[in-house]
Amino acid sequence: AQMALERDYETQREYDTRYRVLSEATRDAFVFVGTRSGRVIDANPAACTLLGVARADLIGSAFSQEFDGRRRAEFVETLNLRAMDNAAEPIEAEARRSRTPVRIVATAFRAAGEPLILCRLDAAETQGAGTGEMA
Amino acid sequence: AQMALERDYETQREYDTRYRVLSEATRDAFVFVGTRSGRVIDANPAACTLLGVARADLIGSAFSQEFDGRRRAEFVETLNLRAMDNAAEPIEAEARRSRTPVRIVATAFRAAGEPLILCRLDAAETQGAGTGEMA
Repeated sequence: AQMALERDYETQREYDTRYRVLSEATRDAFVFVGTRSGRVIDANPAACTLLGVARADLIGSAFSQEFDGRRRAEFVETLNLRAMDNAAEPIEAEARRSRTPVRIVATAFRAAGEPLILCRLDAAETQGAGTGEMA
Repeated sequence: AQMALERDYETQREYDTRYRVLSEATRDAFVFVGTRSGRVIDANPAACTLLGVARADLIGSAFSQEFDGRRRAEFVETLNLRAMDNAAEPIEAEARRSRTPVRIVATAFRAAGEPLILCRLDAAETQGAGTGEMA
């Protein structure tokens, strides 16, 4: 059991590290969201910059909170529907803290635990930016 | 031991899956290279497209082979030096198969096994493209 635990730890560290290094090196902004809870599981530095929030404040909070005029249940439902449809259009929203219009490209997947949604946040071309609500 | 093995499998699957989903969703091109061997450990779809090579042909082969006029030992040494220096300039090279000028941004890190280098390949602005050698 001891050897199995050690291998467990080593294996976890290998993928954990590759995952972390990749998420820090990519210039795209990514947020992992729990399908059922709608809460942020993880976010990379590019996403924190785009949203204008510290990673520690983002993780565990409702992802809908980061956008203006988005009710949580409705936002999670939209995210789920788009995530399951490969041909779906991105979700257009405005980041509440940074006032940046973003397009959210969502992909649903299942790992070991809770089903997750990977959201790529693309900064949208700023046409009519600063007008506030985009609900 | 059976429970530990099951947890091992589940934990590995969690990070393995997140890593794979992230590497497929990012628009940046990434290649993981073994520090000592100079061989490709993994590459994402964007990298395969940029280099013009099938993933199966890339994995396990010497990364230097993908570039014109690069001797393997010298290429691996340059990659290692740049990867350890955060302030280093990207390496300029031309992808042999796709004839695309690229900039390689290298980051060294150590996971459970062999030390690795994460290479982000940025397509360089095509000034004087098509002239061949850029060694």
